[in-house]
Amino acid sequence: MRVEIWSDIACPWCYIGKARFEKGLAEFAHHDEVEIVHRSFELDPTYAGDEPVQVIDMLARKYGRTREEAQAMEANVAANARAEGLGYLTEGRDHGNTFDIHRLLHLARARGRQDELLNLAYRANFAEERSVYDGDVLVALAVEAGLDADEARAVLADPKAYADEVRADEREAAELGANAVPFFVFDRRYGISGGQPAEVFTQALEQAWKDRPMTMIGEDAGACGPDGACEVPVTGGTNA
Amino acid sequence: MRVEIWSDIACPWCYIGKARFEKGLAEFAHHDEVEIVHRSFELDPTYAGDEPVQVIDMLARKYGRTREEAQAMEANVAANARAEGLGYLTEGRDHGNTFDIHRLLHLARARGRQDELLNLAYRANFAEERSVYDGDVLVALAVEAGLDADEARAVLADPKAYADEVRADEREAAELGANAVPFFVFDRRYGISGGQPAEVFTQALEQAWKDRPMTMIGEDAGACGPDGACEVPVTGGTNA
Repeated sequence: MRVEIWSDIACPWCYIGKARFEKGLAEFAHHDEVEIVHRSFELDPTYAGDEPVQVIDMLARKYGRTREEAQAMEANVAANARAEGLGYLTEGRDHGNTFDIHRLLHLARARGRQDELLNLAYRANFAEERSVYDGDVLVALAVEAGLDADEARAVLADPKAYADEVRADEREAAELGANAVPFFVFDRRYGISGGQPAEVFTQALEQAWKDRPMTMIGEDAGACGPDGACEVPVTGGTNA
Repeated sequence: MRVEIWSDIACPWCYIGKARFEKGLAEFAHHDEVEIVHRSFELDPTYAGDEPVQVIDMLARKYGRTREEAQAMEANVAANARAEGLGYLTEGRDHGNTFDIHRLLHLARARGRQDELLNLAYRANFAEERSVYDGDVLVALAVEAGLDADEARAVLADPKAYADEVRADEREAAELGANAVPFFVFDRRYGISGGQPAEVFTQALEQAWKDRPMTMIGEDAGACGPDGACEVPVTGGTNA
């Protein structure tokens, strides 16, 4: 079974939702047979600031709230994070453009290190006040995740590297009707939007597992079996 | 939409089936929105011959047939291949262990060159009498497919490189009930076994497309939208 998770590093509910999903997954009997793929979704793709701003200031400016109101919003999210055992800084976090981080996560996926890098990037952003909008920090996180420093640097230096993969993920999100993240997709059959409680994830995993058997289409056709036998059907096939 | 195709380079029906699938795909209105992933399936995983043998001899030996009977089997397959516009040599083809080719196809997937390499490997094996059981031929094919020669050589030299990915594909095939190839899976909802006529593939694509809308599970939960807004639901969430 395959679970795809669309998220953005800048999204606190993605950070919290990942922990809740993993808790739900641990309760699922077939968790060893679940392949997890993290997919890209930029919350703020047009953000062009060369300098990252502070999250609280961004929230206050964007929603026309006072700093105090923005702080109250953050405190609520922080309480949810801490209830999952996650560190959460309500002040001092940067906000910026996450495109480069998504490209790096695609490199990490190609190297089998995606989950490691995502965990480290979430922790850096939400719990450690290390700016994930700083190229040197990203390279350091990549190395901590088991990637090659030079390869990570080369990807960050080339804006085209894995850019198509990020765009493809975002197109797919739109096609699947995802307009907010985190967005979880189970074998493309069931979807979950948002950082739901762990038991909702377990339920979705169980439902998707039950519905796994595929419907087979078509009659007998030429095929080769594991013993090397290649059946040539009497009917079927262009030339039969 | 995602189509996964399990196949083995040594399988003539996989070679023919790929052409038929692509013909069926071309007739499908949303063919631009189909992601294709080639997955590994070894027909003869325990084949340990250091020296490849000729296919006709293998067929004759394996099924206790005469060379003439084996040739007749091959002639039938060849007629099907040629009807799809594919070259097919009924004599002179090698048979061997395909594990290394599968590992190389996984490297090619990571580099976005999987379809190119598979097409070249099929042509080499079935139409050109270039032995895909020869490491130098494989490196040459990898380079023709756009891969880096040194990287391809390094993967071939290290039997562990992408070995887990090959085994994972094979485990998944077994879980999905695939006992022969080619085996086509459409969004994990519909399956097609064998090199069916093109129109069966079009039908499966249309059926899977129609069934795409996912069932959403769960209530409102914390999520962040593209405008940067992170809704905090009043209900739901561990701490809400």
